[in-house]
Amino acid sequence: MRDVAIIGVGMNKWGELWQKPLRDIFVESALLAIEDSGVDHIDSMYVGCMSSGIFVGQEHLGSLLADYLGVNPIPCTRIESACASGGAAVRMGFMDVASGMSDIVLVGGVEKMTDVSGGGATYALSTAADQEYEVYHGVTFPGLYALMARSHMHQYGTSREQLAQVAVKNHENGSKNPLAQYPQKVTVEKVMNSILIADPLRILDCSPITDGAACAILCPAEMAKKLSKKPPVKIIASGHATDTIALHSRKDFTTLNATVKAAEKAYKMANLKPEDINLAEVHDCFTIAEIIVIEDLGFVKKGEGGKATESGMTALDGKIPVNTSGGLKSKGHPVGATGVGQLIEIVHQLRGEAGQRQVKDAKIGLTQNMGGSGGSTVVHIMQAM
Amino acid sequence: MRDVAIIGVGMNKWGELWQKPLRDIFVESALLAIEDSGVDHIDSMYVGCMSSGIFVGQEHLGSLLADYLGVNPIPCTRIESACASGGAAVRMGFMDVASGMSDIVLVGGVEKMTDVSGGGATYALSTAADQEYEVYHGVTFPGLYALMARSHMHQYGTSREQLAQVAVKNHENGSKNPLAQYPQKVTVEKVMNSILIADPLRILDCSPITDGAACAILCPAEMAKKLSKKPPVKIIASGHATDTIALHSRKDFTTLNATVKAAEKAYKMANLKPEDINLAEVHDCFTIAEIIVIEDLGFVKKGEGGKATESGMTALDGKIPVNTSGGLKSKGHPVGATGVGQLIEIVHQLRGEAGQRQVKDAKIGLTQNMGGSGGSTVVHIMQAM
Repeated sequence: MRDVAIIGVGMNKWGELWQKPLRDIFVESALLAIEDSGVDHIDSMYVGCMSSGIFVGQEHLGSLLADYLGVNPIPCTRIESACASGGAAVRMGFMDVASGMSDIVLVGGVEKMTDVSGGGATYALSTAADQEYEVYHGVTFPGLYALMARSHMHQYGTSREQLAQVAVKNHENGSKNPLAQYPQKVTVEKVMNSILIADPLRILDCSPITDGAACAILCPAEMAKKLSKKPPVKIIASGHATDTIALHSRKDFTTLNATVKAAEKAYKMANLKPEDINLAEVHDCFTIAEIIVIEDLGFVKKGEGGKATESGMTALDGKIPVNTSGGLKSKGHPVGATGVGQLIEIVHQLRGEAGQRQVKDAKIGLTQNMGGSGGSTVVHIMQAM
Repeated sequence: MRDVAIIGVGMNKWGELWQKPLRDIFVESALLAIEDSGVDHIDSMYVGCMSSGIFVGQEHLGSLLADYLGVNPIPCTRIESACASGGAAVRMGFMDVASGMSDIVLVGGVEKMTDVSGGGATYALSTAADQEYEVYHGVTFPGLYALMARSHMHQYGTSREQLAQVAVKNHENGSKNPLAQYPQKVTVEKVMNSILIADPLRILDCSPITDGAACAILCPAEMAKKLSKKPPVKIIASGHATDTIALHSRKDFTTLNATVKAAEKAYKMANLKPEDINLAEVHDCFTIAEIIVIEDLGFVKKGEGGKATESGMTALDGKIPVNTSGGLKSKGHPVGATGVGQLIEIVHQLRGEAGQRQVKDAKIGLTQNMGGSGGSTVVHIMQAM
């Protein structure tokens, strides 16, 4: 198995891009990644996208996006794992290079979620849950994560204020990210007084609806220094795991088994422990998700995610900065692109080009990208070369 | 790169399975493949599916199907490449094993197309074309393939009768396949007098709307003989290529460049020529498609596909039998499953268990699976071990 490096990254400013179709949003980011890497061609492509069929009436993104990027006839495949589609696309590119099938691979993600037909974003997103046993009965994602939040508050005494602290921290980080959709800072009071969505979650506990794309260029590590204009970053582990699609099938709502298992695999592959990680981008689709995930990744003990957030442990200057990009909360959450966006933040940090949000001496970073109510999780660990 | 073998295959009878949800259709086939192989566990899964979001309001099949097969937390990813989704899923499983990431991988495909909501199959299938520049103006797939048929008839003198011969041959083969949706034999007269869909294509030139699934178990070739109950089959090449998504962007409607390029790659990887192939399963979504594809695969010269079909060259007892399973035409076309179904026919033939439709001395078989109007094509070549 060949070692794999990231030699270029690119993403456009995320937001409500009403004037841009999906194909343009993707191609913009892809060109930025190609330019950033300096490569003169690519051998294959993987594109994460959750639900372009429902959102914009367009499946077959493999053909569409290779075509509009001007690179057909190279192979291009669309990868879907709900909100973990981007992370799953990175994993496919990783295997493509690792196996020796391709040398220079573009991995990307895209979602066009605003100004679309197809029943609206809440319906489209609900297709990541169990349609027949959850959605049919009226459950949507804020409701599912609200159940997790209530359970965590009940079992571990996590407070409403601690949930809000996740949003405060991530918007503080996002205010330093020029590509973030909502760079506005928020306060605990503002989060706690925002509109109630699904008790206890309020609108400022929820990640937004976003149009956006993100791309990265991978190649064999041994070719990276020769090909790359900038310091390459090695992908030292890729872990992927699943859980029951329906929340009601799980024994415990306060832990996400796919995250636990994907992280176990990734740590084993990288031969590292949680304490070796310098910073992480995690899937804060709702504030409670970040609290549960930092526990399941082993950064803190089970039940202590809220307290750790409150203490500043996961802040930019904390022991393990989490979501320095602003996370899904502030940077935005174009679902298929999110996993690749996380990778981009880690690359910027490991290259030392994260500007005002730079983490000092960042050498090893982790991404955790999940789909549905945690039914799929992809974890990658990256190291500066 | 490790060599990869197929050690088990399984598919249920395809048709209008109104009483079965998507998850049951898939799990039935997956269990048949696992049983056929004799393995006691699987390490990861890839599921090809084109449009479950539109058809049944369900994305995130990775989590759903690993869950319902009872194998979570193993990684499971849904792969989409329109009607080439199944072939693309096989390719991902091939890379997973080849790279050394996983040993025992289930690759499958599924589509639930009948008794569904979501605007009907014609709308859902149209999302494989260019939504903004083709579909919006009213084009659907029978229309696109009718343009190719007219062009081929004009340039090469291909006759209406020759188109019909493809259907006659494939239904003849399908009549020998107990799993085929439409095993009825048809005559040239019957095809030519069937309802006109998009001139010159009639309904018996078109593949049907189908519910179905197909699965296969892959492992490293070196482990295959030890693990497998039956003779293993080696995947000696995987080629994938794209073309413009819109038909109107192509210089010539009588050739499918993605098929030409994917086949070139596959022949090179296998170190074989078209004349080395003993039999092939090709993507006869419409009769004209088979004629163009057998030319683009190099089995006959450009323009001679119609004549070759008429002469019996591609019949069960011909020089190069094509679509011995009945093809999409007779066996059915559950779009995400089709590419894996093709693989299954080749495995049965190379194992010598194809019964009444067995090709004598079959040693090397090829599958060609395409999406849209040929915007994506995946070609695999298999050899008896």
